[in-house]
Amino acid sequence: MGTENEMAADDIAIRTATRDDLPAIIAMLANDHLGSKRECYADPLPNVYYAAFDAIDGDPNNEIVVAEQDGKIIGTLQLTLIPNLTYQGGVRALIEGVRVDSTMRSAGIGRILFEWAIDQAKKKGCHMVQLTADKTRPDAHRFYESLGFSATHEGMKLHLT
Amino acid sequence: MGTENEMAADDIAIRTATRDDLPAIIAMLANDHLGSKRECYADPLPNVYYAAFDAIDGDPNNEIVVAEQDGKIIGTLQLTLIPNLTYQGGVRALIEGVRVDSTMRSAGIGRILFEWAIDQAKKKGCHMVQLTADKTRPDAHRFYESLGFSATHEGMKLHLT
Repeated sequence: MGTENEMAADDIAIRTATRDDLPAIIAMLANDHLGSKRECYADPLPNVYYAAFDAIDGDPNNEIVVAEQDGKIIGTLQLTLIPNLTYQGGVRALIEGVRVDSTMRSAGIGRILFEWAIDQAKKKGCHMVQLTADKTRPDAHRFYESLGFSATHEGMKLHLT
Repeated sequence: MGTENEMAADDIAIRTATRDDLPAIIAMLANDHLGSKRECYADPLPNVYYAAFDAIDGDPNNEIVVAEQDGKIIGTLQLTLIPNLTYQGGVRALIEGVRVDSTMRSAGIGRILFEWAIDQAKKKGCHMVQLTADKTRPDAHRFYESLGFSATHEGMKLHLT
């Protein structure tokens, strides 16, 4: 880590998102070669996002997390805790919806967010953190591997119509 | 599908698991080249499994499902519903902990279980069903692909110590 990253870490706060953060979060989710095809970032933000946020916020096993610097939202991810029977009744953490502000990439913000999420998973007693990474995002794979993740599984998706 | 599969489908019931089903479920989870290293099937069953079952059973977004034939548990999976911001606030279904009784493989039971789970995901308004499949299970990948799943993602895991 260079000096820039260390400086960035000093004044970045990681916290649970509020409803007021939603426009900034959805802007980040939409600003991406995959997200731009899926999301609808408009002012005002479509109500479906607020409804989803309320469902997540009301679920003790789900949390939207943001990275904030100087009052600006610069990163986000969703952390889901899943009670399972497998691994002797172990709890897993699932991470989805990861984005860093496009003007702030390679500044170590993703790493700070992930280190926070992994630490949170440990505190909650999880034995594993898992995620699926689109095969068209090789940079993301390298980043996750640098955090200790292994691509031991196929991430399989079935879109319902 | 052959005649055998069609006959099997007629008298197989798919339902939410109860606590009484747990020994049969854990026996299936343990009876597998990966599961045998992870699970602890004993009589009586370790309490960790009952605690995990209670957590799952008490969570409206989680459900252990079993396939039953002539009073015998012959298959299981876990269905998790996850509210997300991505895909315009879409809900995803996640499937984990899939097993069919080793004496009943290739009889179409996995397909019946999955068709039930996919139908359930549709009823709950999910836009996607996802799962991760260990890369050492090529037969499972072919099975999932035959159901319409695509291995578009890497399934990445980080084991916490």
